[in-house]
Amino acid sequence: MKLGLGTGHLLCYLFFMQDMFMEAAIAEARMGLAAGGIPIGSVLVFEGKIIGRGHNQRVQQGSVIHHAEMNCLENAGRQKAAVYRECTLYSTLSPCPMCSGAALLYGITKIVVGENISFQGPEDYVRSQGVNLEVRQDERCIAMMQDFIKTNPDLWNEDIGTE
Amino acid sequence: MKLGLGTGHLLCYLFFMQDMFMEAAIAEARMGLAAGGIPIGSVLVFEGKIIGRGHNQRVQQGSVIHHAEMNCLENAGRQKAAVYRECTLYSTLSPCPMCSGAALLYGITKIVVGENISFQGPEDYVRSQGVNLEVRQDERCIAMMQDFIKTNPDLWNEDIGTE
Repeated sequence: MKLGLGTGHLLCYLFFMQDMFMEAAIAEARMGLAAGGIPIGSVLVFEGKIIGRGHNQRVQQGSVIHHAEMNCLENAGRQKAAVYRECTLYSTLSPCPMCSGAALLYGITKIVVGENISFQGPEDYVRSQGVNLEVRQDERCIAMMQDFIKTNPDLWNEDIGTE
Repeated sequence: MKLGLGTGHLLCYLFFMQDMFMEAAIAEARMGLAAGGIPIGSVLVFEGKIIGRGHNQRVQQGSVIHHAEMNCLENAGRQKAAVYRECTLYSTLSPCPMCSGAALLYGITKIVVGENISFQGPEDYVRSQGVNLEVRQDERCIAMMQDFIKTNPDLWNEDIGTE
Protein backbone atom coordinates (compact mmCIF):
# COMPACT_ATOMS: atom_id res chain seq x y z
CA MET A 1 0.00 0.00 0.00
CA LYS A 2 2.91 2.28 0.82
CA LEU A 3 4.14 1.76 -2.74
CA GLY A 4 0.76 2.72 -4.08
CA LEU A 5 -0.14 -0.87 -5.01
CA GLY A 6 -3.79 -1.70 -5.53
CA THR A 7 -5.83 -4.24 -3.60
CA GLY A 8 -5.17 -6.85 -6.29
CA HIS A 9 -1.40 -6.55 -5.85
CA LEU A 10 -1.72 -6.71 -2.09
CA LEU A 11 -3.83 -9.89 -2.29
CA CYS A 12 -1.26 -11.45 -4.68
CA TYR A 13 1.53 -10.57 -2.24
CA LEU A 14 -0.35 -12.04 0.74
CA PHE A 15 -1.11 -15.22 -1.22
CA PHE A 16 2.56 -15.53 -2.21
CA MET A 17 3.62 -15.14 1.44
CA GLN A 18 1.11 -17.78 2.59
CA ASP A 19 2.33 -20.15 -0.10
CA MET A 20 5.91 -19.54 1.03
CA PHE A 21 4.97 -20.66 4.54
CA MET A 22 3.28 -23.83 3.27
CA GLU A 23 6.43 -24.43 1.19
CA ALA A 24 8.46 -24.21 4.39
CA ALA A 25 6.15 -26.71 6.11
CA ILE A 26 6.51 -29.07 3.12
CA ALA A 27 10.29 -28.67 3.27
CA GLU A 28 10.13 -29.75 6.94
CA ALA A 29 8.01 -32.78 6.00
CA ARG A 30 10.53 -33.76 3.30
CA MET A 31 13.39 -33.37 5.77
CA GLY A 32 11.59 -35.80 8.08
CA LEU A 33 11.04 -38.26 5.24
CA ALA A 34 14.71 -38.10 4.23
CA ALA A 35 15.63 -39.02 7.81
CA GLY A 36 13.36 -42.09 7.70
CA GLY A 37 10.50 -40.38 9.51
CA ILE A 38 6.83 -39.62 8.93
CA PRO A 39 6.54 -36.76 6.40
CA ILE A 40 4.51 -34.16 8.23
CA GLY A 41 5.88 -30.66 8.66
CA SER A 42 4.83 -27.45 10.34
CA VAL A 43 5.85 -23.83 10.77
CA LEU A 44 4.68 -21.12 13.18
CA VAL A 45 4.41 -17.62 11.72
CA PHE A 46 4.34 -14.35 13.65
CA GLU A 47 4.17 -10.96 11.96
CA GLY A 48 5.13 -12.44 8.59
CA LYS A 49 8.16 -14.32 9.93
CA ILE A 50 8.70 -17.99 10.76
CA ILE A 51 9.46 -18.26 14.49
CA GLY A 52 9.33 -22.08 14.71
CA ARG A 53 9.78 -25.05 12.39
CA GLY A 54 9.31 -28.73 13.06
CA HIS A 55 8.49 -32.17 11.78
CA ASN A 56 7.19 -35.45 13.17
CA GLN A 57 9.78 -37.18 15.36
CA ARG A 58 8.16 -40.56 16.08
CA VAL A 59 10.90 -42.50 14.31
CA GLN A 60 13.86 -40.17 14.81
CA GLN A 61 13.35 -39.52 18.54
CA GLY A 62 11.02 -42.41 19.36
CA SER A 63 8.59 -39.71 20.41
CA VAL A 64 4.83 -40.07 20.90
CA ILE A 65 4.28 -36.34 21.47
CA HIS A 66 6.52 -34.73 18.85
CA HIS A 67 4.00 -34.61 16.04
CA ALA A 68 5.01 -31.95 13.50
CA GLU A 69 2.98 -29.14 15.08
CA MET A 70 4.17 -30.03 18.61
CA ASN A 71 7.79 -30.16 17.47
CA CYS A 72 7.30 -26.80 15.77
CA LEU A 73 5.78 -25.21 18.90
CA GLU A 74 8.58 -26.66 21.04
CA ASN A 75 11.23 -25.31 18.66
CA ALA A 76 9.56 -21.88 18.76
CA GLY A 77 10.25 -21.84 22.51
CA ARG A 78 8.42 -20.11 25.32
CA GLN A 79 6.29 -17.29 23.86
CA LYS A 80 3.90 -14.81 25.39
CA ALA A 81 0.15 -15.26 24.94
CA ALA A 82 0.11 -11.97 23.02
CA VAL A 83 2.47 -13.55 20.45
CA TYR A 84 0.57 -16.82 20.11
CA ARG A 85 -2.67 -14.88 19.57
CA GLU A 86 -1.17 -13.28 16.46
CA CYS A 87 0.40 -16.47 15.11
CA THR A 88 -0.63 -18.68 12.22
CA LEU A 89 0.22 -22.37 12.48
CA TYR A 90 0.90 -24.08 9.14
CA SER A 91 0.80 -27.86 8.91
CA THR A 92 1.02 -30.14 5.88
CA LEU A 93 -1.73 -32.34 7.39
CA SER A 94 -4.92 -31.70 9.37
CA PRO A 95 -3.88 -31.47 13.05
CA CYS A 96 -4.82 -34.43 15.25
CA PRO A 97 -6.65 -33.95 18.59
CA MET A 98 -3.33 -33.44 20.46
CA CYS A 99 -1.96 -30.83 18.06
CA SER A 100 -5.35 -29.12 17.76
CA GLY A 101 -5.49 -29.01 21.56
CA ALA A 102 -2.03 -27.43 21.72
CA ALA A 103 -3.18 -24.69 19.33
CA LEU A 104 -6.27 -24.12 21.49
CA LEU A 105 -4.23 -24.05 24.72
CA TYR A 106 -2.04 -21.27 23.37
CA GLY A 107 -4.87 -19.36 21.74
CA ILE A 108 -3.49 -19.59 18.21
CA THR A 109 -6.19 -18.00 16.10
CA LYS A 110 -5.32 -19.21 12.61
CA ILE A 111 -4.35 -22.64 11.26
CA VAL A 112 -3.55 -23.33 7.60
CA VAL A 113 -3.73 -27.02 6.69
CA GLY A 114 -2.05 -28.61 3.67
CA GLU A 115 -4.64 -31.35 3.30
CA ASN A 116 -7.27 -33.35 5.19
CA ILE A 117 -7.85 -36.20 2.72
CA SER A 118 -5.31 -38.56 4.31
CA PHE A 119 -6.36 -37.69 7.87
CA GLN A 120 -8.81 -35.28 9.42
CA GLY A 121 -8.48 -33.98 12.96
CA PRO A 122 -11.31 -32.40 14.99
CA GLU A 123 -11.61 -29.42 12.63
CA ASP A 124 -15.23 -28.59 13.51
CA TYR A 125 -14.39 -28.54 17.22
CA VAL A 126 -11.37 -26.33 16.59
CA ARG A 127 -13.48 -23.91 14.53
CA SER A 128 -16.17 -23.93 17.24
CA GLN A 129 -13.49 -22.58 19.61
CA GLY A 130 -13.00 -19.51 17.41
CA VAL A 131 -10.05 -20.65 15.28
CA ASN A 132 -9.91 -19.71 11.61
CA LEU A 133 -8.93 -23.06 10.08
CA GLU A 134 -8.30 -23.14 6.35
CA VAL A 135 -7.69 -26.30 4.31
CA ARG A 136 -5.67 -26.00 1.08
CA GLN A 137 -5.90 -29.55 -0.35
CA ASP A 138 -2.38 -29.07 -1.68
CA GLU A 139 -1.57 -31.82 -4.20
CA ARG A 140 2.03 -32.10 -2.99
CA CYS A 141 0.88 -32.70 0.61
CA ILE A 142 -1.72 -35.26 -0.48
CA ALA A 143 0.76 -37.19 -2.68
CA MET A 144 3.43 -37.19 0.04
CA MET A 145 1.08 -38.64 2.69
CA GLN A 146 -0.64 -41.10 0.35
CA ASP A 147 2.72 -42.52 -0.76
CA PHE A 148 3.92 -42.79 2.82
CA ILE A 149 0.75 -44.43 4.14
CA LYS A 150 0.82 -46.99 1.30
CA THR A 151 4.36 -48.08 2.12
CA ASN A 152 4.28 -47.65 5.93
CA PRO A 153 0.75 -48.47 7.10
CA ASP A 154 1.82 -49.76 10.55
CA LEU A 155 3.90 -46.71 11.38
CA TRP A 156 1.14 -44.43 10.18
CA ASN A 157 -1.54 -46.22 12.20
CA GLU A 158 0.67 -46.05 15.28
CA ASP A 159 1.05 -42.30 14.79
CA ILE A 160 -2.70 -41.73 14.75
CA GLY A 161 -3.31 -44.13 17.64
CA THR A 162 -5.15 -46.84 15.74
CA GLU A 163 -2.60 -49.67 15.87
CA MET B 1 -11.85 -62.97 44.33
CA LYS B 2 -9.43 -65.89 44.07
CA LEU B 3 -8.88 -65.59 47.82
CA GLY B 4 -12.58 -65.79 48.42
CA LEU B 5 -12.85 -62.10 49.29
CA GLY B 6 -16.26 -60.46 49.14
CA THR B 7 -17.28 -57.52 46.97
CA GLY B 8 -16.57 -55.10 49.83
CA HIS B 9 -12.97 -56.27 50.13
CA LEU B 10 -12.49 -56.08 46.39
CA LEU B 11 -13.81 -52.50 46.28
CA CYS B 12 -11.48 -51.55 49.17
CA TYR B 13 -8.55 -53.07 47.29
CA LEU B 14 -9.42 -51.24 44.05
CA PHE B 15 -9.80 -47.95 45.92
CA PHE B 16 -6.43 -48.49 47.61
CA MET B 17 -4.78 -49.16 44.24
CA GLN B 18 -6.33 -46.04 42.68
CA ASP B 19 -5.16 -43.95 45.61
CA MET B 20 -1.67 -45.38 45.22
CA PHE B 21 -1.60 -44.15 41.62
CA MET B 22 -2.74 -40.65 42.60
CA GLU B 23 -0.02 -40.73 45.29
CA ALA B 24 2.52 -41.48 42.55
CA ALA B 25 1.23 -38.55 40.46
CA ILE B 26 1.50 -36.27 43.52
CA ALA B 27 5.06 -37.52 44.12
CA GLU B 28 5.88 -36.52 40.52
CA ALA B 29 4.37 -33.07 41.09
CA ARG B 30 6.45 -32.63 44.26
CA MET B 31 9.58 -33.72 42.42
CA GLY B 32 8.87 -30.99 39.85
CA LEU B 33 8.35 -28.40 42.57
CA ALA B 34 11.61 -29.38 44.29
CA ALA B 35 13.41 -28.77 40.98
CA GLY B 36 11.93 -25.27 40.72
CA GLY B 37 9.18 -26.34 38.33
CA ILE B 38 5.38 -26.20 38.13
CA PRO B 39 3.95 -28.86 40.51
CA ILE B 40 1.78 -30.97 38.24
CA GLY B 41 2.39 -34.71 38.02
CA SER B 42 0.98 -37.63 36.08
CA VAL B 43 1.22 -41.41 35.78
CA LEU B 44 -0.04 -43.82 33.12
CA VAL B 45 -1.38 -47.14 34.40
CA PHE B 46 -1.80 -50.34 32.41
CA GLU B 47 -3.07 -53.57 33.95
CA GLY B 48 -2.50 -52.29 37.48
CA LYS B 49 1.07 -51.16 36.83
CA ILE B 50 2.59 -47.74 36.21
CA ILE B 51 4.13 -47.72 32.72
CA GLY B 52 4.92 -44.00 32.58
CA ARG B 53 5.57 -41.15 35.02
CA GLY B 54 6.09 -37.47 34.34
CA HIS B 55 5.82 -33.90 35.51
CA ASN B 56 5.62 -30.45 33.97
CA GLN B 57 8.94 -29.40 32.40
CA ARG B 58 8.32 -25.75 31.43
CA VAL B 59 11.01 -24.46 33.76
CA GLN B 60 13.39 -27.42 33.81
CA GLN B 61 13.51 -28.03 30.05
CA GLY B 62 12.13 -24.70 28.84
CA SER B 63 9.40 -26.80 27.26
CA VAL B 64 6.00 -25.59 26.05
CA ILE B 65 4.73 -29.10 25.28
CA HIS B 66 5.96 -31.12 28.26
CA HIS B 67 2.98 -30.61 30.50
CA ALA B 68 2.83 -33.37 33.12
CA GLU B 69 0.56 -35.69 31.11
CA MET B 70 2.59 -35.17 27.92
CA ASN B 71 5.85 -35.84 29.76
CA CYS B 72 4.28 -38.96 31.25
CA LEU B 73 3.09 -40.23 27.83
CA GLU B 74 6.52 -39.50 26.34
CA ASN B 75 8.26 -41.37 29.16
CA ALA B 76 5.91 -44.34 28.66
CA GLY B 77 7.31 -44.61 25.13
CA ARG B 78 5.72 -45.95 21.96
CA GLN B 79 2.77 -48.15 22.90
CA LYS B 80 0.24 -50.08 20.84
CA ALA B 81 -3.33 -48.76 20.54
CA ALA B 82 -4.49 -51.91 22.34
CA VAL B 83 -2.41 -50.86 25.36
CA TYR B 84 -3.54 -47.22 25.40
CA ARG B 85 -7.17 -48.36 25.23
CA GLU B 86 -6.75 -50.18 28.55
CA CYS B 87 -4.79 -47.41 30.26
CA THR B 88 -5.84 -44.97 32.93
CA LEU B 89 -4.14 -41.57 32.94
CA TYR B 90 -3.77 -39.97 36.38
CA SER B 91 -3.06 -36.28 36.68
CA THR B 92 -2.93 -34.04 39.73
CA LEU B 93 -4.74 -31.30 37.76
CA SER B 94 -7.54 -31.23 35.17
CA PRO B 95 -5.85 -31.79 31.77
CA CYS B 96 -5.62 -28.74 29.50
CA PRO B 97 -6.80 -28.86 25.85
CA MET B 98 -3.39 -30.16 24.68
CA CYS B 99 -3.15 -32.97 27.24
CA SER B 100 -6.83 -33.84 26.81
CA GLY B 101 -6.23 -34.01 23.07
CA ALA B 102 -3.28 -36.34 23.56
CA ALA B 103 -5.47 -38.70 25.61
CA LEU B 104 -8.11 -38.59 22.85
CA LEU B 105 -5.53 -39.20 20.10
CA TYR B 106 -4.34 -42.37 21.80
CA GLY B 107 -7.80 -43.56 22.77
CA ILE B 108 -7.15 -43.55 26.51
CA THR B 109 -10.51 -44.45 28.00
CA LYS B 110 -10.11 -43.38 31.63
CA ILE B 111 -8.67 -40.24 33.22
CA VAL B 112 -8.49 -39.67 36.98
CA VAL B 113 -8.01 -36.02 37.92
CA GLY B 114 -6.65 -34.77 41.25
CA GLU B 115 -8.56 -31.50 41.15
CA ASN B 116 -10.24 -29.01 38.82
CA ILE B 117 -10.62 -26.04 41.18
CA SER B 118 -7.34 -24.36 40.20
CA PHE B 119 -7.83 -25.04 36.48
CA GLN B 120 -10.41 -26.87 34.42
CA GLY B 121 -9.68 -28.31 30.99
CA PRO B 122 -12.32 -29.22 28.39
CA GLU B 123 -13.78 -32.00 30.57
CA ASP B 124 -17.23 -32.00 28.96
CA TYR B 125 -15.70 -32.34 25.51
CA VAL B 126 -13.44 -35.16 26.69
CA ARG B 127 -16.43 -36.98 28.21
CA SER B 128 -18.44 -36.42 25.02
CA GLN B 129 -15.71 -38.40 23.21
CA GLY B 130 -16.39 -41.44 25.40
CA VAL B 131 -13.75 -40.97 28.09
CA ASN B 132 -14.57 -41.82 31.69
CA LEU B 133 -13.17 -38.75 33.46
CA GLU B 134 -13.31 -38.74 37.25
CA VAL B 135 -12.42 -35.75 39.45
CA ARG B 136 -11.21 -36.42 43.00
CA GLN B 137 -10.90 -32.88 44.44
CA ASP B 138 -7.91 -34.14 46.43
CA GLU B 139 -7.03 -31.58 49.13
CA ARG B 140 -3.28 -32.16 48.67
CA CYS B 141 -3.52 -31.39 44.94
CA ILE B 142 -5.63 -28.28 45.54
CA ALA B 143 -3.28 -26.91 48.23
CA MET B 144 -0.19 -27.59 46.11
CA MET B 145 -1.57 -25.71 43.09
CA GLN B 146 -3.10 -22.84 45.07
CA ASP B 147 0.20 -22.22 46.87
CA PHE B 148 2.11 -22.33 43.62
CA ILE B 149 -0.26 -20.02 41.72
CA LYS B 150 -0.19 -17.49 44.58
CA THR B 151 3.61 -17.26 44.53
CA ASN B 152 4.19 -17.73 40.76
CA PRO B 153 1.26 -16.15 38.92
CA ASP B 154 3.28 -15.22 35.80
CA LEU B 155 4.71 -18.69 35.33
CA TRP B 156 1.33 -20.26 35.89
CA ASN B 157 -0.40 -17.94 33.42
CA GLU B 158 2.28 -18.68 30.84
CA ASP B 159 1.69 -22.41 31.31
CA ILE B 160 -2.03 -22.11 30.57
CA GLY B 161 -1.47 -19.70 27.67
CA THR B 162 -3.00 -16.61 29.24
CA GLU B 163 0.12 -14.45 29.66
